[in-house]
Amino acid sequence: MQQKKFTVIGGDLRNLILANLLVKEYHKVEIFGFKNSSFDTELIEKQGIEEAIHNSDVVIGPLPCSNDNETLNAPFHPGRIYINDVFKQLKKSQIFLGGHISKKLLHLSEINNVYTIDYLKREEMAVLNAIPTSEGAIQIAMEELPITLHGCKSMILGFGRIGKTLAKMLIGLGCKVYVEARKYSDIAWIKNYGYIPVHIEQLEDYLNGMEVVFNTIPNIILDSKQLKNINKECLIIDLASKPGGVDLEQAKTMGLKTIWALSLPGKVAPLTAAQAIKETVYNILSELGV
Amino acid sequence: MQQKKFTVIGGDLRNLILANLLVKEYHKVEIFGFKNSSFDTELIEKQGIEEAIHNSDVVIGPLPCSNDNETLNAPFHPGRIYINDVFKQLKKSQIFLGGHISKKLLHLSEINNVYTIDYLKREEMAVLNAIPTSEGAIQIAMEELPITLHGCKSMILGFGRIGKTLAKMLIGLGCKVYVEARKYSDIAWIKNYGYIPVHIEQLEDYLNGMEVVFNTIPNIILDSKQLKNINKECLIIDLASKPGGVDLEQAKTMGLKTIWALSLPGKVAPLTAAQAIKETVYNILSELGV
Amino acid sequence: MQQKKFTVIGGDLRNLILANLLVKEYHKVEIFGFKNSSFDTELIEKQGIEEAIHNSDVVIGPLPCSNDNETLNAPFHPGRIYINDVFKQLKKSQIFLGGHISKKLLHLSEINNVYTIDYLKREEMAVLNAIPTSEGAIQIAMEELPITLHGCKSMILGFGRIGKTLAKMLIGLGCKVYVEARKYSDIAWIKNYGYIPVHIEQLEDYLNGMEVVFNTIPNIILDSKQLKNINKECLIIDLASKPGGVDLEQAKTMGLKTIWALSLPGKVAPLTAAQAIKETVYNILSELGV
Amino acid sequence: MQQKKFTVIGGDLRNLILANLLVKEYHKVEIFGFKNSSFDTELIEKQGIEEAIHNSDVVIGPLPCSNDNETLNAPFHPGRIYINDVFKQLKKSQIFLGGHISKKLLHLSEINNVYTIDYLKREEMAVLNAIPTSEGAIQIAMEELPITLHGCKSMILGFGRIGKTLAKMLIGLGCKVYVEARKYSDIAWIKNYGYIPVHIEQLEDYLNGMEVVFNTIPNIILDSKQLKNINKECLIIDLASKPGGVDLEQAKTMGLKTIWALSLPGKVAPLTAAQAIKETVYNILSELGV
Repeated sequence: MQQKKFTVIGGDLRNLILANLLVKEYHKVEIFGFKNSSFDTELIEKQGIEEAIHNSDVVIGPLPCSNDNETLNAPFHPGRIYINDVFKQLKKSQIFLGGHISKKLLHLSEINNVYTIDYLKREEMAVLNAIPTSEGAIQIAMEELPITLHGCKSMILGFGRIGKTLAKMLIGLGCKVYVEARKYSDIAWIKNYGYIPVHIEQLEDYLNGMEVVFNTIPNIILDSKQLKNINKECLIIDLASKPGGVDLEQAKTMGLKTIWALSLPGKVAPLTAAQAIKETVYNILSELGV
Repeated sequence: MQQKKFTVIGGDLRNLILANLLVKEYHKVEIFGFKNSSFDTELIEKQGIEEAIHNSDVVIGPLPCSNDNETLNAPFHPGRIYINDVFKQLKKSQIFLGGHISKKLLHLSEINNVYTIDYLKREEMAVLNAIPTSEGAIQIAMEELPITLHGCKSMILGFGRIGKTLAKMLIGLGCKVYVEARKYSDIAWIKNYGYIPVHIEQLEDYLNGMEVVFNTIPNIILDSKQLKNINKECLIIDLASKPGGVDLEQAKTMGLKTIWALSLPGKVAPLTAAQAIKETVYNILSELGV
Repeated sequence: MQQKKFTVIGGDLRNLILANLLVKEYHKVEIFGFKNSSFDTELIEKQGIEEAIHNSDVVIGPLPCSNDNETLNAPFHPGRIYINDVFKQLKKSQIFLGGHISKKLLHLSEINNVYTIDYLKREEMAVLNAIPTSEGAIQIAMEELPITLHGCKSMILGFGRIGKTLAKMLIGLGCKVYVEARKYSDIAWIKNYGYIPVHIEQLEDYLNGMEVVFNTIPNIILDSKQLKNINKECLIIDLASKPGGVDLEQAKTMGLKTIWALSLPGKVAPLTAAQAIKETVYNILSELGV
Repeated sequence: MQQKKFTVIGGDLRNLILANLLVKEYHKVEIFGFKNSSFDTELIEKQGIEEAIHNSDVVIGPLPCSNDNETLNAPFHPGRIYINDVFKQLKKSQIFLGGHISKKLLHLSEINNVYTIDYLKREEMAVLNAIPTSEGAIQIAMEELPITLHGCKSMILGFGRIGKTLAKMLIGLGCKVYVEARKYSDIAWIKNYGYIPVHIEQLEDYLNGMEVVFNTIPNIILDSKQLKNINKECLIIDLASKPGGVDLEQAKTMGLKTIWALSLPGKVAPLTAAQAIKETVYNILSELGV
């Protein structure tokens, strides 16, 4: 990757680490929006947005890009950074990258003639993020359970990116891994990989013996009916984004311990999460021939 | 699965084993086309097609279904079995299943008003078949190499079904596994699974140190230019269907040992291959609500 | 295992769980020394030692058995339980089991004519305990590191029970695992198992790139000289019993983060730890033909 | 390792490969006893023993060293090489290494004042040899079974070097792995490693469902009583040296397919076997400070 000038603007610790990773690989990097961070870095923040963005090839915004569709998500910045102010500064030759960019923001960027790409929509980013998500889930299970994962019976609901990654790690720790899926081809893959396949129609027969259940499906799969099959001692960890896969009210009423764990990569492994962003940014630029 | 009546007609050892597996699971089974087989079975062949098919719920043909688009592929049958004769016997209520059914045959079945399904087109069948294919490839490598796969450097070209299955087995044996892919999302998965990713553009840099190369891509990827990067001692095993992925002429001229291994499941593990067919047939019938 | 009468007396949560596990497997169980525990159990404590021990086949004491060579280690008991009082109650036909029984206590038991066995000296107990110890070490690493263990470079010092167990789990998580050993046969095993072997004489060359180092050797191996080779960002987790394997003073001076993690099984997985004791107790009784 | 002068004398392909490996690592190497080999090498054989041994630091004989206690095991030599003739040439400063040296030969070397070491007695050699032995066993199983090892039920008798290595490879291929052992600590290790433990007393209950059984114990464990528990379709592979672990006569009578596979490393992976010898020779010399 040729030397470039990047501006990293707003975002949490991941973005600040990202800026430092880019410097280490001999790029020029300007930052803005990290004044209140206590992270140890040699990068000195620019006075304003204009200076920070000036002459930059690529501007990297936060993940998620905004919480209100108006200002950048910039928890370490004392004031507000209006996205419109950023977009106004950007020239046609510059690229704006961010994560989880809403339709409204995309529309705003079009009006301002800004070339905007959401790196979270890249498949490789989602695959790389499944790693810290799965490790975070394992950490929670280790912290909460009075037993070792080694030798314990675990069920994963769903065999998408997180399901696949988590299953491999759990079996690597010596766990007995059951995986629920709906499609016959997924059932075949689950067998192929050496886990115990559970077709959705058999789910209730299998839930009973489990000591930990991980959900990865963003639809209520553990409803009141299925929850009845789960032991009191079993821990439920829900990794799915809203609305999640567990009827939390019902689980609470039944005395089942449920943890809804969201946004794990930034929390449990910010450095790894930043590396995933860096790699995805590189891929995007390489495909654009920049 | 409810008790049914199956007719298994034509095909190689796999189909005869399939018939016996179905009997073991309490189905009624008629067979036809296995007179010359020496396989030990209690099933007694019917005199003719008509008797064999009569009252059957499901008729299972060979894999591949035909080699000439006219007769069933029936190596253990002394004469010829014309597909038209089979189709003529089939009623609307009966289902005909076969593997690798050509367009011409499909057309013929339509004319005869036969409900025909190609089970090889099912994703789970392809996934299950990747297992004996990969084990067969490993067996060949073990037989041919003067070194153990443990500790040896192997490269897999392509990360589809066979690439994924083979990579997992090789690393399970202690092999150092490099996997080539073109898509960035595949590169991310390869990293995720713990193999060493090789983007296609880096291929020539990596080929040189390999001791065995497995190709799974049905396009010439090892052309005369890439072959030059491969050591004389390296073994090349091509698992891709026609036209294969290796310029065989060129490899021969350069003194590189190449083995083009096709149709491994039926050769190395007919029983496992038959089980895969059985499972896929069950899934098809379950989806049809039969 | 035939039904028996057990008395579980003193000890921490593990012993109370052990008592409940024994009940579940249809043994008669009396307990003493758990009045202040908040653990939910249907077992009702006996009034005194005499009643608790009366007619019991096997009396199971704490792990460690005593901290002062005079009283049982009984953190949940409001008063003191003098070991001599226990030994005085024991008849020749009864067996006393405990963990980490000092020479002084053994001598005391001989004087009292008590048949005493230290279950911690059993090889299988040490092997089973290596599992929660290793998982506990992994949990700490996950909690402390800003990166995932997947893809991270880790070094294990020593290839005994914990080294072997930890290495397998780390590689199962996708870690790059280096193992240091002194004996050539251990180096051969490390290779055999697929880890990267580091002979002690090469240690300083390899330490530099590590992101986490686990020590299992109860002798200072990371002295001031070796510590110099370790990166500032590297986490050191010492799992060795006294005197440990890290010069802690020196590490602190150099700004290296070191965690000395002792007695992990009882802390991170009391239920698994209790099962290991139960299994070992069964083995002892089976060998004695009791 | 400092440059040395080696003489490789007699032995099979492994020794000739060993000579070539030593040359590649910049040692001086003389060979004798390979005239009839068709192996492609640039090494030119010396005319006689005296010339071959002259000025050599280390003389490496065959594995096994001799079949008759009189002549070297030298299948590629047109005549006979008397060991006494070799020993007579050796000076006090030279070291003689060989594999499987009988007491009689050791005595002969003492009489001749020759410093002789049997490298097969080194633990690391045995550990490294377990790798090609296990892969060879897997190759045989793949060749003989009509099913894939993936998904198949396999039992390993004994958990020594070969048992441990084979179990890891089989599980890596997706096999269901049962391991029989006698010692409780081995049972604990088997659990720890994630295999299904079978205590010798439970053996007969478990044998029945197996599809392949590997024996590693050099004592008849599969006697007529145990053989009765094995299915007709099950394949038995005996890897134990004489007397083996299977009552072969009885197995034959009962129609059980048994393969007694001996000396696999030299047969299935001569190059890997030669590397194991080289590494062990280096370790020996390093310990001697030569």
